[in-house]
Amino acid sequence: MLRRANAIAIFHAIRLQPGISQREIGDRTGIDKSTVSAVINQFDALGLLERVADESRKGRGRPSEGVRINGAAGLMLGIDIEPERLVVMSAGLDGVPLDVSEYPALPSESEFAGGVSAAVAAHLARGGSTLAEVRSIGVCLPGLVDRSGKLISSSNFRWGAVDVAGELRARFGQKVWVDNDARGAGLAERLFGCCLDVQDFVFIDSHSGVGGALYLEGAIYAGSLGIAGEIGHTKIVPHGRICQCGDGGCLSAYISGPALRDAFRGAGLVANSFAEMKALAEQNIPEAMGVLDEAGEILGLALSNFINLLNPPNIVIGGGLAVLAPYLMPPAERVLRRHALPEGLAHCTILISELSKEPHARGPLAVALQGLSQLNADGAFPW
Amino acid sequence: MLRRANAIAIFHAIRLQPGISQREIGDRTGIDKSTVSAVINQFDALGLLERVADESRKGRGRPSEGVRINGAAGLMLGIDIEPERLVVMSAGLDGVPLDVSEYPALPSESEFAGGVSAAVAAHLARGGSTLAEVRSIGVCLPGLVDRSGKLISSSNFRWGAVDVAGELRARFGQKVWVDNDARGAGLAERLFGCCLDVQDFVFIDSHSGVGGALYLEGAIYAGSLGIAGEIGHTKIVPHGRICQCGDGGCLSAYISGPALRDAFRGAGLVANSFAEMKALAEQNIPEAMGVLDEAGEILGLALSNFINLLNPPNIVIGGGLAVLAPYLMPPAERVLRRHALPEGLAHCTILISELSKEPHARGPLAVALQGLSQLNADGAFPW
Repeated sequence: MLRRANAIAIFHAIRLQPGISQREIGDRTGIDKSTVSAVINQFDALGLLERVADESRKGRGRPSEGVRINGAAGLMLGIDIEPERLVVMSAGLDGVPLDVSEYPALPSESEFAGGVSAAVAAHLARGGSTLAEVRSIGVCLPGLVDRSGKLISSSNFRWGAVDVAGELRARFGQKVWVDNDARGAGLAERLFGCCLDVQDFVFIDSHSGVGGALYLEGAIYAGSLGIAGEIGHTKIVPHGRICQCGDGGCLSAYISGPALRDAFRGAGLVANSFAEMKALAEQNIPEAMGVLDEAGEILGLALSNFINLLNPPNIVIGGGLAVLAPYLMPPAERVLRRHALPEGLAHCTILISELSKEPHARGPLAVALQGLSQLNADGAFPW
Repeated sequence: MLRRANAIAIFHAIRLQPGISQREIGDRTGIDKSTVSAVINQFDALGLLERVADESRKGRGRPSEGVRINGAAGLMLGIDIEPERLVVMSAGLDGVPLDVSEYPALPSESEFAGGVSAAVAAHLARGGSTLAEVRSIGVCLPGLVDRSGKLISSSNFRWGAVDVAGELRARFGQKVWVDNDARGAGLAERLFGCCLDVQDFVFIDSHSGVGGALYLEGAIYAGSLGIAGEIGHTKIVPHGRICQCGDGGCLSAYISGPALRDAFRGAGLVANSFAEMKALAEQNIPEAMGVLDEAGEILGLALSNFINLLNPPNIVIGGGLAVLAPYLMPPAERVLRRHALPEGLAHCTILISELSKEPHARGPLAVALQGLSQLNADGAFPW
C-alpha cells in the first residue's frame, strides 16, 4: 500500500519536473532516500525513465544525475466508453496526448470487448503503431465500477454486470486499468488539471449522468466496494423527479445531460449538448436562463450538502457543469449562502475545471498513467 | 503525523491487551520494532506504563517482558458540556470510568470556563483527588469545533464563538483536548464500543442536535477547518422544517431530540427524552408509532445518502437514535431498500451503538484518552 503510494508520488514528481535529481524527489515527496532510489531502479528496469544531467546544477560543483520519464518508450491508451460513442486517445508515457479517434457506441455489454478491441486496432493502425508498444490502457465508463474493475451496473447504459477489466485483460494483458468516469475525471484534475498542487478536493461532474469523486488527503476515497462518490444518486428532492436509476429525487434527475435536455424541451427549446444549452443562454433567451437558474439552485443544494458533510477545502466543478458554469454558479452561490455552514463555505474554494472544456475526457489517460506508475503486480487499484 | 498515529496505535494495542510484548505490538500494528520500542520508552518516561512478565509466554523458554497501561498512574477527566447539564466523569489512564457527577448547565459562553473549573473542583473534591493527579482532560460539546479546539458556533447553545481549548488550557494546562460531541462519540465507539475492530465507519447520532463523524481508513476525517461530519445540517427536504440553525430542511429539524419532542407534542403526546419516547412507543400508542415511523423514514433518507456518497462498510447509529432504534430502523430500512444503491447497501453493516444507551456519554473520555496517547507536543489533534 505504502509502496504503491510512494511509487505514484515519485513518478509524478519526475513527470512534473523532468530532469529532477533523486535528492530533490526526496525533498518534494518526503520519501526517504533509499526508497526513492529503489523505486527509481524499478522504473528504470521497466524502461520508463531516462537518466540525464541535472540541468539545475549545471556549473555548480560535481554534476548530479537527474531522471525524466522516457516519453518515447511506449504508448498509453485512454478509452472512454460513453453511451453515445467510444473514444480512443493515445499518449506518450509522460501523459502528453498524441492522437484521438472516435468510434460508434458499443451496442451491448456482450459485444463490448470485441468492440473495444476493434477500435483499439483501428486507432493503432491509423497511427502506424502496434499493441506491443502500448504500456498501459486506462478505461473509463459511467456506472458503478468496483475495486477490481468490474462494472456492477450502469443506469446510463442499461447494461448489466460485466467484468470489464477481466475481459479486456484477457485480450490485452495485465496492463488494463478500469474506473468510473467521474473518478477518472477527478484523477485527471489531480494529474493534469487544476489540482496539481491540491491534495484534498471533492469533484462533481455531469455527462450522461452526474458523478463524483472524493479525493481526500492525497488519495481517492473509494469506500467498501470501490463505488464511493455517487453524488448523482444522493436524494435532493424527496419523492422528486424520476431518475434513470429508477429511483426518484436523485441529483442526476435534475442536472445530468439528459435531464437538462428534457428541461429545455419542457421550456420549448431544443438543446442536445451542454454547448448548445450554453449557446441558448448566451442569446439571453429567458426560458434557457430559467432552466439553468433552476438547475444551478439544485447544484447549490448538492454543494451545500458536500460542504456541510465533508468540509472540503476545495470543490471542482467538471463536465457539462463546467461548460455551463457561467449560468449555473450564480444561482448555486445564492443557495450556498443560504444553506452551507458559513464557516465551511468561507474555507472552501470552488474551482471550475478547464480540462472539462476539452472535447475529449482526459480521465482514461489519467487512469492509465496511475496504473503505469504504481508498480503494482496484483492489478488492483491502490486505494 | 505518522509518529502520532503510531503512538496512538501502540497505546491502544497495549490498552486492549494488557501485558502484551513489544514483538506482538509490532505484529498487531504493523509498526516496526525500533519505532515500537522508541514510543514505549516515551510512554514509560511519562509514567503511563508498567512493565510486566508476558503472561502468555509463561513457562515457554526465556520469559519475555510485556507492558500494560498503568491505570493507577493518574486520572483522566471527561467533561460533557450539554445544553441542559454539565457532566464530569473520571477514569483511570486505561479509560475505565471511576466516577461521574452532574452539574447545572453553563449559563453563557462568557461564564463557561469558570463554570467548568468549579465543576471540576467539586468533582475532584468529592473523590478526594487533586488536579495534579489529572493527566488528560477531554471536553465535548455540540457545535462546530475547529482543529484547535475553538467553538466556532453552536445552534444548540446559541453561544457565539469561544476559544474553549484556549480558555481551559489557561486554567488546566496543555492537557486539555476539545472536540465536537458527535465526533467524540464516534471516537468512543472506536476505543470502547462497537468499532474496536472496525477501521472504517460513519457515525450518526442525535441529542440536542444531529451530529456525525467520518472515521475513514483508520482516522477521523475532519475536513479543512475540522468541522466535517455535520450531517445534521445536510438538507433532506428542500424548503422544509426550520432548523435551530435558522435554515430550513436540515436533517436535524426532523430527528434531533427537540424536533422529535415537538413532533410528539404535535401528535398530542408529551415526551421529554428519548427514553420517554421509547416508553410511549412500547405502549403501542399509534400516534407515537406514527411520529417514529416518519422520523425513521427521514433517517433512512439520510443513511441512503451516506451509502450512495461514501459507500461505507459500516454505519453506527448512536445517541437517541440508538435508544429509539427498534422503532426507527424498520422504516429506515424500508427507505434504504428504495433509495440506497443496492450494492452499497448489501455491503454496509448497520450497527446500533450500545454505548449510547449508557446514561453518560463516553466521548469526552475517548477524547482525553486520544490526547493522552498521541505524544503530541503542539496540542493539536492528530488529524
